[in-house]
This record gives sequence, C-alpha cells and structure tokens, in this order.
Amino acid sequence: MTEPAVPLAGDGGLVRLRLDLAYDGTDFAGWAVQPGQRTVQAEVEAALATVLRLPAARVTCAGRTDAGVHARGQVAHVDLPTGAWDGDERALGRRLAGVLPGDVAVRAVRLAPDGFDARFSPLWRRYAYRISEHPYGPDPLRRRDVLAHGRPLDLDAMAAAARTLLGEHDFAAYCRRREGATTVRTLLELTWQRDEGLLVATLMADAFCHNMVRAMVGASLAVGEGRRPVPWPAEVLAGRVRRPDVAVAPPHGLTLEEVHYPEDAELSDRAAATRRRRAAPTGGTT
Amino acid sequence: MTEPAVPLAGDGGLVRLRLDLAYDGTDFAGWAVQPGQRTVQAEVEAALATVLRLPAARVTCAGRTDAGVHARGQVAHVDLPTGAWDGDERALGRRLAGVLPGDVAVRAVRLAPDGFDARFSPLWRRYAYRISEHPYGPDPLRRRDVLAHGRPLDLDAMAAAARTLLGEHDFAAYCRRREGATTVRTLLELTWQRDEGLLVATLMADAFCHNMVRAMVGASLAVGEGRRPVPWPAEVLAGRVRRPDVAVAPPHGLTLEEVHYPEDAELSDRAAATRRRRAAPTGGTT
Repeated sequence: MTEPAVPLAGDGGLVRLRLDLAYDGTDFAGWAVQPGQRTVQAEVEAALATVLRLPAARVTCAGRTDAGVHARGQVAHVDLPTGAWDGDERALGRRLAGVLPGDVAVRAVRLAPDGFDARFSPLWRRYAYRISEHPYGPDPLRRRDVLAHGRPLDLDAMAAAARTLLGEHDFAAYCRRREGATTVRTLLELTWQRDEGLLVATLMADAFCHNMVRAMVGASLAVGEGRRPVPWPAEVLAGRVRRPDVAVAPPHGLTLEEVHYPEDAELSDRAAATRRRRAAPTGGTT
Repeated sequence: MTEPAVPLAGDGGLVRLRLDLAYDGTDFAGWAVQPGQRTVQAEVEAALATVLRLPAARVTCAGRTDAGVHARGQVAHVDLPTGAWDGDERALGRRLAGVLPGDVAVRAVRLAPDGFDARFSPLWRRYAYRISEHPYGPDPLRRRDVLAHGRPLDLDAMAAAARTLLGEHDFAAYCRRREGATTVRTLLELTWQRDEGLLVATLMADAFCHNMVRAMVGASLAVGEGRRPVPWPAEVLAGRVRRPDVAVAPPHGLTLEEVHYPEDAELSDRAAATRRRRAAPTGGTT
C-alpha cells in the first residue's frame, strides 16, 4: 500500500469528497440550512469546518429531506481547498464522528471519483415509509421512525393502487411546484408489504420532487382506509394539478434508505443529462 | 359470542390481568418504583389507576429491568377488585394507550388464566444485547438500543466462550448477591451472531439474577476484544465469587425480548416449583 495521496484537482485547486450520512430527523428542521434552525446540513458543515480548520464548508446532498424525515443512506459531497485534507479517509471519518451530535452520523468518507455530483449523478433514490397498525401504538423503540396508524389497512388495495403510478409521468399532482422546474419523474418502484409487524412502503425513482413521496403515501393511506377507491391515485396523477384532498403523510414515518450512482465512468454524463432534464419545460402543466 | 364476563375470583374478590408491555428504557430509572424517580412500574400503575378510577394499582413483572434497559416483551400482572373492570380487554388496552407516555406501550391486555404469576410462572426469559462495530458509531435511529463499540470483535472467540457457560450452574460470579436467594440458574442459550450490520447476543435462561445478563456480555466483550482468552468466562463462573475484573456491559444495548409461559394447566405448578427453587440454599457460595 502506498500512502494515500490527495490528487491535484482540475477545478480551481479543489478536491471533492463523498460523504455517506445517516440521521434521526426528529430534532432537525430538515436537511437544508435555515437561519435560526437546527438542520443536518448546518451540523455537517460545522463538523467539517471544525475538523479541517476551515472558515466554512459547503455540502450538497442527494435528497433534501424535510423536517422530521430520517436518512440511513443520504449522500453528499463537499469541495475542499487542496491541502485542507491529508487524504486519510478513515481518520477524517473518525474525527467527524467525534464532533457530530448523536443524531447524525458519518457512514463513509471517500475521495469522490471524477465527475461525481451527489445531487445530479444518482440513477435513483430509495425511500421507505413505515406504519404501525397496532391498536395500542408502535413499539416505543421505533416510535421515532414509524407512523402510528392504529387500524388495519387494506394492503391488497394499496398495492393495486401503487402499481398504477409506476413509470414516467408528470407528477405535478403530487408535488409542490417550483417555477421553471420539471415535475416529470420516473417512478421505478412503489410497493407495500408487511415486515416484522410493520407495514412498509418502498419507493424508488430517478428523483422525487418536493413532497412527492409523502403525498403518494397519503393517497395510498386513503385507499388503504377505504376512503378512496383503488383507481383514485391514478386519477389524481392524470389531473396533473395539486389537490387539497391529497393529504401529505406525516414526515416521521419516512426514511431515505439509499442513493444509487452509476459506475464511475458514467458519472459526468449522468450529471449532465440530469441537469438538462430538470431544466426542461414541464410538459404543459401550469 | 357471548358478552365478556369478569369471572368471580376465588381469592378475596380479585381479578388478575396479564399485561404485555414494551418500553424505551432511555429515560427511565428502570422498572421498579423508586421514590422521586421516573420508572416504568410507576407509569403503568398510574395509567391503570387513572383509567380504572382506582386509588392505586400494584403491578408485578417478569423481569425487573435496570435503568436504561429496554423491553419489547415484558409481561406483568395486576390484581384488580372485582367490579373495577368491565371485562373488555381491547377497550382497556386502548384506554391505557391513550394515557401512557410515548416511551411505554401496552402490547396486549388479557384476563390471566388461573394460576398465572408474571414473575414465578415463566419457563424462560429471552434477552438480546446489540452492538455496533461501525468505526464511526451506530445508526442514529438505533443509538438508543445499540452499544457503540467501534472496533471489530472476534465473533468466533465470543461464540466459543459462550458455549462453555450453558447449562445449570451457580452463577454467583456473574450476579449481584442477595441474602438468602439462590444464584443457581439454567442458561438455555447464549449465542452471538451478526445481523443487519449489528453484533447481537441472544440470552435465554429460566431466570436471570441481578446483573447476570450484562456481566456475561461484559465477559464476552473481554474475549471478543482479545483481552481475555476463550476459557476465561468459564473460569470466572467456576470461581463462584463476584470479581471486579468482570465489567458489567452498559444497559442501553440490552432489551428484554420475550417471556415464555407454560400451558395454562401448568401455570400453578410452575410457579410453586420456582418459589421453592428460589428459596433453596445457594449450594455453598458465600
């Protein structure tokens, strides 16, 4: 083994690190920095600045989770001035672990491969939404990441409705709109199953727009409770407008489980393609 | 279905309920009532008194867990004056759930079968001890019930040492002594395995004396870290005296997972046999 070396960055004397992160979102006002709020991004940036003796560090993530949402597989990148870091990945991981609070953890620290962009390079993101149907509430050790529902849900109806949302669609009906940004996404998986006494949704897409996961879970719950028929979530989708009768499910049942990236050689092309798609017109929704 | 009826109790006009309980032990000073402390027993007794409009209720459990220890399968009983309860198990469960704090939950409420005693009737108790070997600490969503170890442990050595403790022994070396109480127990299972990124011990015995689970886990850790050889835990056992070099593992990695009772017809005999054994002389330990 040769000594780990910091490669000379081609871009203004910067070196990019990939950080894999996990957090208990209960006591955070979400990922993104907000003045006067405790956020995951602010904690991670402060930890990096402390450990690397930098005046500041700016971190970009794959999934900007809302207040109360958790992560087991968040991915972020940070660009450091060449020379700020000695190239020892494990030592940096341990030092970050030493200064981060107990509700946010580094899972891995690595030199990012060329072309890696935490936000634009992913092929897909995977979330889980967990629900307890126990009439007396969830396991107290899971109460932070499990929604208490308290009545049995119709799993077959939820699974049937979920299948009608798969594929590439304009998900405007399930998104909070942002001016000039497309709401076209490809939903690769939406399944419901019972696992260890919980009802668990798995949601996988190239990317999710804001509120999309929790709005789709909310529509699934309406079907599972029998308040809406199986075809309803697809009818909402086809309408392509946000509706007040689609309830957004509470945040604490949601966890970002995994962000998947292509092989190293594909990272730049993927990031460029994602940037083009996100800037595309929204396909007629207004 | 006929209406649920409260049977006439043969013993002073009392009816006995079985309560299955779960709790996050983080913010409790253990199970047992202590003046000025927040305890699980006090919360459950207060909830029963509130819901049933009784001046007080006295609950007896299967495993008096220490401060910081969790439970997923704790079992308790409570004797109520006949007439205090209308016999509706589900309604009582829902009402208890409505008044208990979020870190303690009722899992089931049932009329106890004849001869049932939460403390003396069990055939065995099962605990789990969970350890993270991740160099940067445990998953933040599991930090309350997982010990952060941070260095890899020698699983094969721990498993080999564990096998030497199985069977009926005087566990005085692993117990905090109580005057006049036997420390003879039958250890039915002590295994270590890796599961979902954690190192998990399963410990099963007819009963455990005070500190026994955590002292055996502490001895296992000494072997797993290479500080002690594989035969050491059995040598400690054979010595039958408490030793300061057996460290008691921290409480928060420990969870009472299950308490197993015999068939209804065996409950009374089992309770009587347990009472006789517990009062037996300790076999020469001092």
